[in-house]
Amino acid sequence: MAIKHFIDVDQLSLKELKEIFIRAKYFCTKPQNELLKGKKLINLFFENSTRTRSAFEISAKNMGAEVINIDISTSALKKGESEKDTIYTLNAMSPDFLTIRHVESGIVEKLARYSESATVINSGDGAHAHPTQALLDCYTIFEKLKFNSLEEFKKLKIVICGDIINSRVARSNIKLLNMLGAKINLVGPAPLVPHSFADENIKIFYDIEAAVKDADVIMTLRIQQERMKSCLISSLRDYYRNYGIKRELLKNAKKSCFILHPGPINRNVELESELADDKDVCLVLNQVQNGIAVRQALLEFLI
Amino acid sequence: MAIKHFIDVDQLSLKELKEIFIRAKYFCTKPQNELLKGKKLINLFFENSTRTRSAFEISAKNMGAEVINIDISTSALKKGESEKDTIYTLNAMSPDFLTIRHVESGIVEKLARYSESATVINSGDGAHAHPTQALLDCYTIFEKLKFNSLEEFKKLKIVICGDIINSRVARSNIKLLNMLGAKINLVGPAPLVPHSFADENIKIFYDIEAAVKDADVIMTLRIQQERMKSCLISSLRDYYRNYGIKRELLKNAKKSCFILHPGPINRNVELESELADDKDVCLVLNQVQNGIAVRQALLEFLI
Amino acid sequence: MAIKHFIDVDQLSLKELKEIFIRAKYFCTKPQNELLKGKKLINLFFENSTRTRSAFEISAKNMGAEVINIDISTSALKKGESEKDTIYTLNAMSPDFLTIRHVESGIVEKLARYSESATVINSGDGAHAHPTQALLDCYTIFEKLKFNSLEEFKKLKIVICGDIINSRVARSNIKLLNMLGAKINLVGPAPLVPHSFADENIKIFYDIEAAVKDADVIMTLRIQQERMKSCLISSLRDYYRNYGIKRELLKNAKKSCFILHPGPINRNVELESELADDKDVCLVLNQVQNGIAVRQALLEFLI
Repeated sequence: MAIKHFIDVDQLSLKELKEIFIRAKYFCTKPQNELLKGKKLINLFFENSTRTRSAFEISAKNMGAEVINIDISTSALKKGESEKDTIYTLNAMSPDFLTIRHVESGIVEKLARYSESATVINSGDGAHAHPTQALLDCYTIFEKLKFNSLEEFKKLKIVICGDIINSRVARSNIKLLNMLGAKINLVGPAPLVPHSFADENIKIFYDIEAAVKDADVIMTLRIQQERMKSCLISSLRDYYRNYGIKRELLKNAKKSCFILHPGPINRNVELESELADDKDVCLVLNQVQNGIAVRQALLEFLI
Repeated sequence: MAIKHFIDVDQLSLKELKEIFIRAKYFCTKPQNELLKGKKLINLFFENSTRTRSAFEISAKNMGAEVINIDISTSALKKGESEKDTIYTLNAMSPDFLTIRHVESGIVEKLARYSESATVINSGDGAHAHPTQALLDCYTIFEKLKFNSLEEFKKLKIVICGDIINSRVARSNIKLLNMLGAKINLVGPAPLVPHSFADENIKIFYDIEAAVKDADVIMTLRIQQERMKSCLISSLRDYYRNYGIKRELLKNAKKSCFILHPGPINRNVELESELADDKDVCLVLNQVQNGIAVRQALLEFLI
Repeated sequence: MAIKHFIDVDQLSLKELKEIFIRAKYFCTKPQNELLKGKKLINLFFENSTRTRSAFEISAKNMGAEVINIDISTSALKKGESEKDTIYTLNAMSPDFLTIRHVESGIVEKLARYSESATVINSGDGAHAHPTQALLDCYTIFEKLKFNSLEEFKKLKIVICGDIINSRVARSNIKLLNMLGAKINLVGPAPLVPHSFADENIKIFYDIEAAVKDADVIMTLRIQQERMKSCLISSLRDYYRNYGIKRELLKNAKKSCFILHPGPINRNVELESELADDKDVCLVLNQVQNGIAVRQALLEFLI
């Protein structure tokens, strides 16, 4: 069944995922084309994001599309317009794609129902989902490990570290890695990693050394400073001591273990600064670069 | 005589208006072209507006033009530059079009005098004029009623409801509908609908039921919440009870009567929410869609 | 040696400068081309600027490039990302050019080191440098005086008036005019024109009448109102009386003397308002116009 709106990763079959990865590989080396010439993409951001907004803008422009950016701080919402009416209004302008970022969990799926003509792409909604991030993360693993088949994910042990419960990046990655059959270790401060996440292939840890044992990949998440205000994290220094990823720690992981981070990094909070700059180990910039190609593949897939 | 700057609707002859409507009809079905390739449009917005800014951006891009957005909150005006010098400066960059939105009535006409090379389009100035809105409103009527000739406007009775005195949308529509020979009923709270608006074809009402009797079209205006602060409207609830357009009320109008609204709608203030969603009656989304095509026709006409 | 990043004017040889001026002349009359088709330019502005941002945007678009604007007030920096990581991240998106404006002196050169793939262009950093402004200023002189050779700058006496010490425009112009062998008179209030600027071809003045004697060109700088707060300028009225450029004053200069200003002008502070509007004498709009062509020539040169 054709996907109209892309809300989260579980809408994709493994066959479709493979197809997207193959095209992403192609767009990595040949980004410029006219596949979306005459098409329009609107970036509708109710919450700021340099990376994601720019990544969609560049992806679409690489393919010849026109891009219209709507930053909600300069929008009709200030005049009291509801999000629903904003979607209706923008649809009437006949865009082909509408990427939506919003602070509220689950709202993008609701808003997509009002989008009759434009294909909605979830660019991150609250703590719910960030499917393009998960796609680019898994593609980065796929490409770095020179996989030929998605089957190879089954042999991986992947650690996701940090504020799991509040992270849309974590949720979409857990879903996608689960679909792919990887083993997942979740680790972080107890209030941020509830037991309810445990599953057949998902283990919960509070000790980082135990969690990273024999890991193939460590995904570390960004700490939102707001969490500290709510006292869920005592201090950034404590967080770094207990859950910051340091070179020392990698001894426990597989020798080939590498690190992913959705960016922007809080250096010496989630990740040792020196390690963040080691491009063989920390793939944060590969992720950004792959993010362009993966989004191009997704746009092509959804059109 | 060729129109250099487009400040208000009365610059157009009926022949030119007809020409624009015919081309708008064409652009409705075939928006993509290269008629403005190599041309540049600058959106110079001294006041925020998602719809109007995006509508111009999409219209121009549909025709192959480049668009540069200048939001004045990030501009030299903050450094004390006068609007006049801004116009001079932007003209020196050789744009073909300069759309200007400003909070001050009458300022766009003044600023246009400083624009030697670029064609200025008034995108709304204070309570003075919003000519592209009037064009798209009348085009929506023309198209909805399947008119073949502008003569047919003469048989229409059109109600404009709300804060007439402060509305640039109302003023431009009154001018244009008057040119077209329609009968106009103005209705709203007494302080907002002064008797000075009365004219041969324009009647003033304070009772909404009387105003909409046998109406073909109801244009309802957006209530600016600022008006309430100045005590011209006692409360939104009172306003809705007295001047909100409800399905019940439509019984007094012609059976085929439909509703226009410039958007964004304050649901259950100017317009019953259920009615706003009835696409056969409330044409707000047709207006947005037609707004793209009408602007494309206008850009083509002015070039 | 090929220039990778363009940080200040002294990176250019006179031969390269001449080449850029010749191409700028060409782009003045034929701006539209496809020389940068498929290329991407990111405007990364950590400090607002309508003119410079729009000028780069229009220059690049004139040549068929795609432009992505990143205004830092809507960026990851707000989340605590360092400028360094921003440069790394944007580079991973594979732009061809990265224009950077920043409030901190010297930072663009530092940031350029992190830009492996994209060519960085300094669009103004603190009080350090604004090389594209200096290029367009000198090109404006070159073109206005119908020079055939850069040698002809040697016969010029050029006055730079105002807040020299805090002006990146002054610093880049002093460097470039010095390279070209022009005689430079610096003039302004004593605290803003230190003796350390004096050099073989550079004289320091505190009296404006003496400074402009026999001048060929007067470059007057914008007064930042912030300077007054720090008591370096007693009042705008005093500044105007002592250092404002007035028609009266031009009697002391060469008959053909003209005025440059980087804009936006504070009328009746740096420059008599009536004089600002005399297009034969005040070339501020020629500067803006030439700024597009010079930037096009620079982009072509750097590619």
